[in-house]
Amino acid sequence: MVKYVLFDIDDTLFPSTEFSTLARRNAINAMITMGMPGGYDALEARLSRIIRAKGSNYGRHFDDLCRQTGIKEPARYTAAAVAAYHDTKTAIQPFPEVPLTLLELKAAGYKLYAATNGNAVKQWDKLIRLRIALYFNGVFVSEEMGTEKSVAFYRKVLKRLGAKPGECVMVGDREDADIIPAKKAGMATVRMLAGKYSSVPTKADRTIRHLGGLIRRLQRL
Amino acid sequence: MVKYVLFDIDDTLFPSTEFSTLARRNAINAMITMGMPGGYDALEARLSRIIRAKGSNYGRHFDDLCRQTGIKEPARYTAAAVAAYHDTKTAIQPFPEVPLTLLELKAAGYKLYAATNGNAVKQWDKLIRLRIALYFNGVFVSEEMGTEKSVAFYRKVLKRLGAKPGECVMVGDREDADIIPAKKAGMATVRMLAGKYSSVPTKADRTIRHLGGLIRRLQRL
Repeated sequence: MVKYVLFDIDDTLFPSTEFSTLARRNAINAMITMGMPGGYDALEARLSRIIRAKGSNYGRHFDDLCRQTGIKEPARYTAAAVAAYHDTKTAIQPFPEVPLTLLELKAAGYKLYAATNGNAVKQWDKLIRLRIALYFNGVFVSEEMGTEKSVAFYRKVLKRLGAKPGECVMVGDREDADIIPAKKAGMATVRMLAGKYSSVPTKADRTIRHLGGLIRRLQRL
Repeated sequence: MVKYVLFDIDDTLFPSTEFSTLARRNAINAMITMGMPGGYDALEARLSRIIRAKGSNYGRHFDDLCRQTGIKEPARYTAAAVAAYHDTKTAIQPFPEVPLTLLELKAAGYKLYAATNGNAVKQWDKLIRLRIALYFNGVFVSEEMGTEKSVAFYRKVLKRLGAKPGECVMVGDREDADIIPAKKAGMATVRMLAGKYSSVPTKADRTIRHLGGLIRRLQRL
């Protein structure tokens, strides 16, 4: 019987991909508002090239954009871009079914955990800004677990919970990080079909398009 | 005749001291919301000691607070504190007379500049969040000028502007950084009586309690 429900965060609890796209668009518009030359389309194309080349965790995309555009006063524009980017990122909202579903799961006696790759403070920040942090009994972040989401990661989760694999279900949008390794660790799996990976085929026990159907599916696992 | 008006930012264009106090209070409350033990008064006293010991630009006040409180899961609380702190800091509002006064000064033909100590992106960020950045013809930040606000700083400003000292007025709340050195560089000075330094005696040419009276005072300089 399932006792523990583990959730991925990005594109499972909130539309992460959409907010990232919107944040980038708002950042470019904020630079233009401050007088940045070049026009939206050219700036967007240049920024996309920088992100592809440097990776999305590189911290100086907007500085590079200013340098490539030949800007003499970069602080004026990077400040505008970073403010708009952060304002968008901090305005994240959960998928609409999420708060009520989490509350119902708690009321039904399930223990809820987040299982996520990345930086602990950043991932906690998302749960806090989504106003759902208090629903979780704990958060397993790769940074603190010493491994990205993998079979080893999920085995460590089981050990920390003192749980049997059959008592756990992992819910996530990524076949590679959420479904396959959790399944190999013996957990039940529910694949969330959302975000940019939604068309990847799945070996999950169940699929959902939104969290609203989750409790019913958990009872049938 | 005055052509250039230079403004300090913190506690001259917005109530910086008040927002810092509020940001700290909101950060502690956010930690308590996430279940942090200790109670507000004890946490506040401990945080104040950390800030006094490490300085206000030290980036890990909340981590230290968690460590001293014996917290095992610091990311949970530091994420909450940092989010609340930033949310407060990004909600800064100008003193109510500021937007209209700046607009009137622009319409009257004055060139407006900010003259400020600190980091260029951070100080631009304030002007952008206050929604007054576009009023300024330029920003002189100590980081870029190679010197904190001093006689040398104001002489560099004059050189960059190609201006005579008598064409410039410096408006600020700090006798030590805004009034005395600008006066020594030959500029006219207007002391803003606001924030924690408001009772410090002044040698400024004029004093104001809010920016609303500035245009009239400039005409009489």
